[in-house]
Amino acid sequence: MIKDYPGIFVTFEGIEGVGKTTNLSYLAEYLHQHNVPILITREPGGTPLADDIRHFLLAEHDEPVEPETELLLMFAARVQHLKRVIVPALEAGKLVLCDRFTDTTYAYQGAGRGIPMEKIATLESWAQDSLRPDVTILFDAPVELALDRISSRKKDRFEKEEREFFVRARNAYLKMAQEQSERFKVVNAAQSIGEVHENLLKILMPLTEKIKNLS
Amino acid sequence: MIKDYPGIFVTFEGIEGVGKTTNLSYLAEYLHQHNVPILITREPGGTPLADDIRHFLLAEHDEPVEPETELLLMFAARVQHLKRVIVPALEAGKLVLCDRFTDTTYAYQGAGRGIPMEKIATLESWAQDSLRPDVTILFDAPVELALDRISSRKKDRFEKEEREFFVRARNAYLKMAQEQSERFKVVNAAQSIGEVHENLLKILMPLTEKIKNLS
Repeated sequence: MIKDYPGIFVTFEGIEGVGKTTNLSYLAEYLHQHNVPILITREPGGTPLADDIRHFLLAEHDEPVEPETELLLMFAARVQHLKRVIVPALEAGKLVLCDRFTDTTYAYQGAGRGIPMEKIATLESWAQDSLRPDVTILFDAPVELALDRISSRKKDRFEKEEREFFVRARNAYLKMAQEQSERFKVVNAAQSIGEVHENLLKILMPLTEKIKNLS
Repeated sequence: MIKDYPGIFVTFEGIEGVGKTTNLSYLAEYLHQHNVPILITREPGGTPLADDIRHFLLAEHDEPVEPETELLLMFAARVQHLKRVIVPALEAGKLVLCDRFTDTTYAYQGAGRGIPMEKIATLESWAQDSLRPDVTILFDAPVELALDRISSRKKDRFEKEEREFFVRARNAYLKMAQEQSERFKVVNAAQSIGEVHENLLKILMPLTEKIKNLS
């Protein structure tokens, strides 16, 4: 993969219902208006082919999907997304905002489903070499609050997981944020939308300045 | 995965057109008649879900499939197949005959497409732990002869590869057979069908005796 690039790779993480996707739309609008060259994308998916894998993953299957199968499919979609979308955008000097990335895998497949973290780390290095997000914004909120917010949504296979699953995922996210405090920025997603937006701009504006100075 | 089992795991390998599938049908018939408990299966595929991945891999896509993506999809299908079909059959004391397995990946994705063999080996250990075929039957024939045989078939994405690809794959197979001579049995697929059948029975009959003594 690439070692150095002019762009900035920002990922959005957190359990279901913390408002990642809504806030990403807000930011996309804001950054467009301020002429920051951005790429908005998401995982799993991000290319038509990776999206096919995403749909396959999110669908209900008669046959149980083995946890290792799920993990390999996730990384298959990720490699396709990285090579065809994310890396070219970073090389073109863009601010890449990606809804979910490998930290989701650690939180959901690792802490959530009990796949050993080392097995995920092996695939991460295999698929990404040394490429990691420059900044990861973790939207954090109590599990009850987050699940309340999605209670009326039509749920896919992941969103149907029970409460305990999301508790484990949230704790894993918080642990990663603590251990990798340089990369992670934690945003309290239980605040009002206005406060969340304010937090996000505080994190992102210095990065957009860096991008603008380059372009 | 499992370390020890009463069954025997036999894989069939070779480039397109060497007659693996035809010979497998013959053997299946023969072994059924002799009351050997067998399981016939194939890769990629082997379960409905793994088959979906197989179809996805063999289809033509508008978007180029990155070599690493292809490899991860292959192993996703393989893990599903192993855990749900092959391992249970081995644990039940069956003779498992599998049309293609991980050696195909080394020959096609490794030698054929140029993915480093070490990258494949990492995934092999990740997905299979120490599980390897007990016996691998390599159907070998000159590339021209093999390609002649499939020249009238409707070809999928793999079979459309050019001659050089299959030369590299054949050489990789022969090298593996030489390096792992205890596991590999090479059958000259350029012989008459009768001679090939005779060779196959010579390899398989001692194994079926072992299986029968167990059951």
